[in-house]
Parts: sequence; structure tokens; C-alpha cells
Amino acid sequence: MNDFTYYNPTKIEFGKAKENNIGLYIKEASIKKVLLVYGEGSIKKNGLYERVVASLNEHGVSYEELDGIVSNPLLSRVYDGVKISKESGVKAILGVGGGSVVDSAKAIAAGAKYDGDVWDFFINKAQITEALPVFTVMTLSAAASEMNGNSVITKDETQQKYSIASVLLNPRISVVNPELMATVSPEYLAYSAVDIIAHSIEVYFTANIHPDFNSRIVESIIKTVMQTTETLMKNPKDYDARAEFAWVSMQALNGLTPAGTAGGSFPNHMIEHSLSALYNVAHGAGLAIVIPAWMKWHKSQNTKQYERFAKEIFNESSADKGIELLEAWFAKIGAPVSLGDAKIPKEDIQKIATNAYGTATVWGMDADYSVETIMEILEKA
Amino acid sequence: MNDFTYYNPTKIEFGKAKENNIGLYIKEASIKKVLLVYGEGSIKKNGLYERVVASLNEHGVSYEELDGIVSNPLLSRVYDGVKISKESGVKAILGVGGGSVVDSAKAIAAGAKYDGDVWDFFINKAQITEALPVFTVMTLSAAASEMNGNSVITKDETQQKYSIASVLLNPRISVVNPELMATVSPEYLAYSAVDIIAHSIEVYFTANIHPDFNSRIVESIIKTVMQTTETLMKNPKDYDARAEFAWVSMQALNGLTPAGTAGGSFPNHMIEHSLSALYNVAHGAGLAIVIPAWMKWHKSQNTKQYERFAKEIFNESSADKGIELLEAWFAKIGAPVSLGDAKIPKEDIQKIATNAYGTATVWGMDADYSVETIMEILEKA
Repeated sequence: MNDFTYYNPTKIEFGKAKENNIGLYIKEASIKKVLLVYGEGSIKKNGLYERVVASLNEHGVSYEELDGIVSNPLLSRVYDGVKISKESGVKAILGVGGGSVVDSAKAIAAGAKYDGDVWDFFINKAQITEALPVFTVMTLSAAASEMNGNSVITKDETQQKYSIASVLLNPRISVVNPELMATVSPEYLAYSAVDIIAHSIEVYFTANIHPDFNSRIVESIIKTVMQTTETLMKNPKDYDARAEFAWVSMQALNGLTPAGTAGGSFPNHMIEHSLSALYNVAHGAGLAIVIPAWMKWHKSQNTKQYERFAKEIFNESSADKGIELLEAWFAKIGAPVSLGDAKIPKEDIQKIATNAYGTATVWGMDADYSVETIMEILEKA
Repeated sequence: MNDFTYYNPTKIEFGKAKENNIGLYIKEASIKKVLLVYGEGSIKKNGLYERVVASLNEHGVSYEELDGIVSNPLLSRVYDGVKISKESGVKAILGVGGGSVVDSAKAIAAGAKYDGDVWDFFINKAQITEALPVFTVMTLSAAASEMNGNSVITKDETQQKYSIASVLLNPRISVVNPELMATVSPEYLAYSAVDIIAHSIEVYFTANIHPDFNSRIVESIIKTVMQTTETLMKNPKDYDARAEFAWVSMQALNGLTPAGTAGGSFPNHMIEHSLSALYNVAHGAGLAIVIPAWMKWHKSQNTKQYERFAKEIFNESSADKGIELLEAWFAKIGAPVSLGDAKIPKEDIQKIATNAYGTATVWGMDADYSVETIMEILEKA
């Protein structure tokens, strides 16, 4: 077991109607003004915006607003948020939405306390030493952004999709009300399921030190995601399945699964970030394309763990069968499993690989993943 | 799934030699003086005391001392610690030892910021609203006290073993170096294993809402505890097994396993507290006596979960077989599994039950556990 530091100071307020307390939570933190960040308006249609604003008003918390956060969120909008934050002197960022909104809220929180360009943090030119506190009200479960310090942002002009991570960006409090997620489309439910599985298996397969307990936790997460996804596909109103799905999504990327492991990396995310940056496919959809291809390419490097995966998840004994059944399950829930499924031209493989190699470099994975290697993986997709 | 709040702000510094940084961690929290709490001197014999004190000195942290904490720690010594803390103006409590030391450190931390009698918190006469920060260096894994806000203390005169819980008592930072645990006796390793399993199964069997994910996590913990205990019985120097055991012990009682459950309670702990308070048996030993008896008494109230337990842990299909094999495993690792094994006279059953009923009342479990019911359970032990 490897040495590690485990620290996750986010408080999760989980359950029905808890968004109505968001003003209280912020007030209890002695914060009087926030920047309210949200997406393209669905929270206005479904009444969530009104309830959040009512709670802020009730508890004397004033707010500025930043809307229009898109999936695969853009640096340009983060810049807008940083500018408003600095000019208006807000004391916290409140993200109401899914992972994109929360990722944007975090980047703004870091940028608001930094004199330079917030992109500096993404290209390792500067370290985050300070940030405004972040609060969230979640409307989609997948990214676990509500319970970690990660943020992934795409730079508009260069289509670089890069990330930052700091415990300073862990939300202070995240409100997770599964009822708010009941209207997620079957398509996005599928992408979310793939994303959670992706978070779980990256380190599971790549680490060279991976204790049994970590494997058991990952397998518990995957089994639960698959079970609850199937329940929700049949009955989107099943509260318990929605709730378990939401809670498990956080466990997949809150620091628990990698604790004590060594040598793990995120190759599927590294490659996928280029698909979503270049073609604006949903992150989970891109992952469903990359994962089976990557597994086929990678399996011989860790055969035992692939066999374990096949056994624990599908009660099968061969590594190949485990990969095949995972790919089939992705397809069954409606996720694309090839470049063609997402209408990404095969001729673009070199372009995608070149873009992904940029991420590999920033993430320190360029020794294992050259442009040629990434092309080889994408050929299998 | 039930509504819940999950909040565990303890930072775990896990790994080799990390105790040498304890002075740094405390200094980084801007704390200049601590009360150093420890047990009956083993840390002086093995050199840990010296290393901790050297680290405090190196980083300009001065300290008062309180030694002599015994297992099943006593209120009288907590009073001593509160008195020293108030008089000397220490700004934090540093516990170096096992669960008893850390539980004492927490009670002192609460008492030091309270004008009344610290026992008020244990009998629900007052609520904890403030506490000094707690830091720990662990030498024994079992109680998970290093990663939760619980403290269990015995009042000397009345032999009441009662508990408090507050996130204000969660250690700020806990140092967990598995190497420091390599000298734990096989006996205490066994008791610790039983204790961890006890923490895991209380809610698992008693909750009326218990999502599958929670069951999977509990089963992951139990499998890991059993596997690593058997490894350590053969080779106490196996670092990886020791490390995994230590990390899993924390997961069993850090808030993860009950999140989203409802109706769970701690009957085995409730009854066991009386055994250790009255006969000063080790907590884990007392639990090994109580658990099989309680399971036999309780199984018909939740047959499906007992069958699940048998299947997942022992690959058996009947509830009875699961209980039988758990009892046999306790015996195999050297834990007592009957009152007789611990030389507790059968004639005392009424006295034990009467004492335990006191805890049942304080814990709000008296509707389910009368003196007669507890006697009935103890008859099976």
C-alpha cells in the first residue's frame, strides 16, 4: 500500500428539498454575497432557479449572476465570471447545475483570488493558493464535481480541454437532491453511467499498487451503477435508484478509490477530452467510445486485474469476455461504442491523437502515450 | 434511500514515518501549544514519544503532558486533562496512542471549552458547541476514532460507559503509520478485527432502509478485515496487510457505511459496553462474545440480510451457517465467544443487562431492548 493523504472536507447535504436550505447554509458560513452560476436556462423552466433565489433572499444573501455555462464548459465564460466576481466583490461562488456548471464555478473561484490569467493554473504555470468558497446545488450526477476539487475547462480558441485539482476548490457544501435529477434524459443517464464507470476503472486497471480493498470498492461502485441505471431506464421516477446512483457517482471520484494505490493514471479521460473538445460530444459518450478500445489495447499489461473484473462484474473468467460484455452493456444503454457511432470520421484519428498528446504531456503521461500509441488505440474504436 | 448529511473533515496522513511531521502539521494550523495525551508508557519504550516530541520541538510547538490513559478510558483522567488544558491554555489536544487515548483527547477537547462538567455531554445534559482541535498519531487500528467525532468514556464510580459524537471532535489531522502497529499482539489484532466487523455489521443488520451499495461496502470491509487479519496472524510484519487493515478500520466507522440508511442502531456495542465497563475486558473481546449471541437472537428480524451475509462472506446460503462461521472465525483468531471464555459468571447476566439497559436508555434503544431482552441475548452467550 502506498503512502497517501486523504482529505475531503466537502459537506454533502443529501436528500429531498434540501436546495431550499441553500441560503441558510451560505448564511451560516457568514457569507453575504455570491455569484450564482448556472447553465442554459433549464433551472428557470423547472422552478429550481426560483427556489434557490428565494432561499438566498430569505437568508439575506445577495447575488450576482452568470448564466450560459455549456457542457464542455468554456474558458471564455470563466473569464466573465472572474471579472464579475472581482468587480462586485462576491464572497463565494454558487453553482446550480451539473458538472459543467460546478467546474466553471471552481475555476471562477480560483481566478477571483488570482491576479494573473486563471488559465495559468491549467497549464501548470501557477499553483492555486487561494480560492473563494464554492457551494453547489446539483442537477446531474456523474462528474463527482460536487465532492472533489477538480475542474475541467476547454479553452475556446485552442480546443484544449485541461484540468485543475485542489482541495481549495472542494465545495464547502453540496446539495444533492436526487429528485432534481429525475428529468435527466435516458441518453444523459447512459453517459453519466459510463462516466462513473470510467472514473472507477482508470486507476483500477492502471495502478501498479492496487490493494484488494480498493478493487472491492470499485467493483461495488460499478455493480451499483449498472444495477441502478437499469432500474432507471425502466422507471426514471425510481427515487431510491436515482439516489443510490447519485451517491455512488461521488464515491467514484472523491479520493476514496485511489487512496493507497500507486502508478494509476487516467488514459481514457486523457483521450476522451480530445473527442469532446474537438467534436463537442458529451463526455460520457466519448468515454464509451474510448474505454472498450483502450481496454483491448491495454489488457495484456494487467491481465490478472482484467480477469478479476470479468469475474466480479460479469461472473466470467476471461479478460476478453469482460471487455466484450462491458462494451455490450454500453451499447445496450444507448451509448456510442465506436467513432462511427458518434459520426467522428476515421480520417481524423491523427488529429485527435495529436490533440490528446497535448493532454498527455500536461498530465505527465507522454512517456506511455505517444501520438502513435493513441492512434493505435483509436484504431480499435 | 434516506436523507443524510455526510461530513468528514479529518485529514488522514497515511504512511511510513509520517509521525515525524506532526509538529509541522500542528504549526501549519497556527497552533503553538498542545496537550500531549498518551497511555501507560509503551510509546516511551518504543521511541515514538521521543520522535513526536522532537517534531514538536523542531517546529516550535510547546506542550503539556497527560499520561496514564488506560483501555476503557476513565472520566477521572479526562477531568485531569481538562484541568491542565484550562490552566495552561493549550490550543489543541494531541493524542498519541490507540482509540482510548484519542477518545480521551476528544473528551478533553470538548471539556476544555466548556464551563460545566464534561460528563454533561455524555448524559445529554448539554450539547457540544465548541472544542479545541484534536490531532492524533495512531498506534492501534480498530476504533476508527482517528477518523470520526466519537468518544467513549467510562465514569469511574458508576461504571457507566457512555459516548459522545460531534463533528467538532473529528481530528483535524490523524497520522496513521502502519509500521507503528506492527508490534500489536495477536490477541489485540484479533480484538481489533472483531471491533471493525462489529462497526460494519451493526447498521447492516439493524437498518430498515439499507441500500445495496451500503451492503457492498460493508461486505468489502469485512472481507478485507478477515483476509488481512489472517495474513497478519501468519506474518505480523506484513506491511501491506497492516496498512490495508488500518485503512479499512477507518472506513468502517467514518460515516460512509450508514450514509443513506435508516433505522440502524448499535445493539452489540450497547451490550458490550457493559461487559468492558464491569469486567474491564477488551472492547473487541466483549464484542466477540456478544455478536454471535445477538445474531442468533436477531436473525429472524431480517432473514434476507442474514442470508446475504452468509452468501457474500462465506459463500453459504443459510443465515444460521453464516452466524456459525463468523463465530468459528472469531474463535479461530483467538477471541472469546462466550461469557465463560472471558470468565464472566453466568450469574451476573442480570447485573450486566441492568447496566446495559442504562446505555439503551441514553441511546434511545430502550423500546427494543428491555432488561429481559438483553438477558435473553446474554443467555445465548
